[in-house]
Amino acid sequence: MLELRLVQGSLLKKVLEALKDLVNDANFDCSATGFSLQAMDSSHVALVSLLLRSEGFEHYRCDRNLSMGMNLNNMSKMLKCAGNDDIITLKADDGSDTVTFMFESPTQDKIADFEMKLMDIDSEHLGIPETEYQAIVRMPSSEFARICKDLSSIGDTLVISVTKEGVKFSTRGDIGTANIVCRQNSTVDKPEESTIIEMQEPVSLTFALRYMNSFTKATPLSNTVTISLSSELPVVVEYKIAEMGYIRFYLAPKIEEDEEETKPQV
Amino acid sequence: MLELRLVQGSLLKKVLEALKDLVNDANFDCSATGFSLQAMDSSHVALVSLLLRSEGFEHYRCDRNLSMGMNLNNMSKMLKCAGNDDIITLKADDGSDTVTFMFESPTQDKIADFEMKLMDIDSEHLGIPETEYQAIVRMPSSEFARICKDLSSIGDTLVISVTKEGVKFSTRGDIGTANIVCRQNSTVDKPEESTIIEMQEPVSLTFALRYMNSFTKATPLSNTVTISLSSELPVVVEYKIAEMGYIRFYLAPKIEEDEEETKPQV
Amino acid sequence: MLELRLVQGSLLKKVLEALKDLVNDANFDCSATGFSLQAMDSSHVALVSLLLRSEGFEHYRCDRNLSMGMNLNNMSKMLKCAGNDDIITLKADDGSDTVTFMFESPTQDKIADFEMKLMDIDSEHLGIPETEYQAIVRMPSSEFARICKDLSSIGDTLVISVTKEGVKFSTRGDIGTANIVCRQNSTVDKPEESTIIEMQEPVSLTFALRYMNSFTKATPLSNTVTISLSSELPVVVEYKIAEMGYIRFYLAPKIEEDEEETKPQV
Repeated sequence: MLELRLVQGSLLKKVLEALKDLVNDANFDCSATGFSLQAMDSSHVALVSLLLRSEGFEHYRCDRNLSMGMNLNNMSKMLKCAGNDDIITLKADDGSDTVTFMFESPTQDKIADFEMKLMDIDSEHLGIPETEYQAIVRMPSSEFARICKDLSSIGDTLVISVTKEGVKFSTRGDIGTANIVCRQNSTVDKPEESTIIEMQEPVSLTFALRYMNSFTKATPLSNTVTISLSSELPVVVEYKIAEMGYIRFYLAPKIEEDEEETKPQV
Repeated sequence: MLELRLVQGSLLKKVLEALKDLVNDANFDCSATGFSLQAMDSSHVALVSLLLRSEGFEHYRCDRNLSMGMNLNNMSKMLKCAGNDDIITLKADDGSDTVTFMFESPTQDKIADFEMKLMDIDSEHLGIPETEYQAIVRMPSSEFARICKDLSSIGDTLVISVTKEGVKFSTRGDIGTANIVCRQNSTVDKPEESTIIEMQEPVSLTFALRYMNSFTKATPLSNTVTISLSSELPVVVEYKIAEMGYIRFYLAPKIEEDEEETKPQV
Repeated sequence: MLELRLVQGSLLKKVLEALKDLVNDANFDCSATGFSLQAMDSSHVALVSLLLRSEGFEHYRCDRNLSMGMNLNNMSKMLKCAGNDDIITLKADDGSDTVTFMFESPTQDKIADFEMKLMDIDSEHLGIPETEYQAIVRMPSSEFARICKDLSSIGDTLVISVTKEGVKFSTRGDIGTANIVCRQNSTVDKPEESTIIEMQEPVSLTFALRYMNSFTKATPLSNTVTISLSSELPVVVEYKIAEMGYIRFYLAPKIEEDEEETKPQV
């Protein structure tokens, strides 16, 4: 039997909004340690990894490990019916092919339960090794979202270049070019508004902008975003979920064959 | 001659917004007692009845009974041109085939008059007998609107079941099932936020959800909605219009042939 | 070399929003006195004239007269990437076929530069003589925008009639007729909310409503609009840009052949 009670139900609503455009169907994995998901996007280019630790739930009962295949679009439709202040409880009986979402209003005057059919989904869990990155940028998540959106009106690719002074986001399209530089500024009063760069060596990588835009759907989950870059590795775009875990997006850089600074092809 | 002056003109704007999706053309009937309308929706399934009593108008002159056929969409286009604080006066000369809406801004610096052609519309006035209902639910109108909208994302029909403890709204669709229970809670501070149930006997009826959703267009007219249910009768969904009258929607329940609790067919 | 620094960058964003639906491509002309544009709309019916005087810029360097052809839609895409509090600097090197827009955030933590290709555009500069008008109406710009929008839901043409008492805006369509009268009211506390009429003689002119609606895209630039009318001349709809200049729209009146008050044809 599974029973997970989340007082801050709006958080689960936001998680689904962050996931549903990127991933159609996915397995949610429940174990004693937490509620997690790992999935490729529908075009098998990006990877998303979610963790909500058991300690973050008001009540967390998971008698045995369980993998529940869900259609994220349908799950999102149901969660949209929860009020923003509602307590959400997720329930599943052992061996059942359904999951129930229960929504309780703060006054307990309105109680809803939504039952959704589960799906069988093939998936393999990728081990993601912990690594050192050449550069890690932490910045306001809304600033990063704004930059990705703005640059999408000019071009299709995003070049992220990190130096000690700052991080530069660039694109190029038919109508012209654009460069946006955010300077390191750790001294501001509000730490969530600062841009902080930890750099081993300068790095410049190119990505498909439309995936970056999808990742920024997670912006409501956290005031800050952390972008970890290394030239040989997928970028990690991470949104911490306060006291519960994180949502992390992975995306391999593009090999820039036809740019000025041509690199040896692999 | 007809001349009706309504200081709170926004009320007439809201009435039109509540009607125009359900009804295309209708006769407005003016008599010494008030301004009223009775019409079937365009698919002849639901009935709407509006009353604005003469006492609610600042000035009400109606020399003889008059029935004015109007296209509600065109009337809505004209009323949308009135400011929310405008005084609206409706005028018609005897025997004229037009009606004039006059809008006066609160400062009297802006005066608009819109003249609309009237139409000949066949209609018969149904007598609606006053009846006892098995159950009457009074609840916040915004809550009812939210529930109808939420359940529409899951299914097409709405089951309303009333017991002494509360009222349950249910639906069922391809992606699963949903039940929302609102408990009786007459003890809250603000009476307009309470849910009150007057019940002779438990009742459970099924309706087409899309009509219910249309009815909730009247939500801006009143903080509360009253739902009157009896197994042999159309449901009445009523929005009171403060100090003036009401808008009432009638909808026959569906006979549920293929539900678990099959009933004897009529 | 050209370098124009505008502290209130949002003003340039608003100018582009006012222009881009009316004009596709246009030459911006820079001289020692200011930054200006004159262009016909794409159907060659309306004329727009913009002036931003050099004194309004924090820094204004223009070594020699320069005419820069720009696609206004692309320029608008780039300016939308500037924050509303950003300082915008426009830069062009002599003989270059590109222009650069630089956006600096108020804290200087974010610096963006957008480079756009210039175009060769044929254009002739029309001399617009200063003239006396039969009637000049100054009124709140939001009121004028609301009236044009409201009347568009009824008809296609706008009749503007000025008398000493006020200005009347009228239209006529399939569903009926509409007249909106704004009275002269110079005595209100807030001068930007007053309607002031300077009249030599009464005038009544007819215009295509869709152009008037386009002109009102300039509403965010100014609290008031000035409408100058003479029977033989194009109307001038002017929005002053505080301490910098103006944007003026010109539109020839329609000859009303098939109206009741038929005029001798020219």
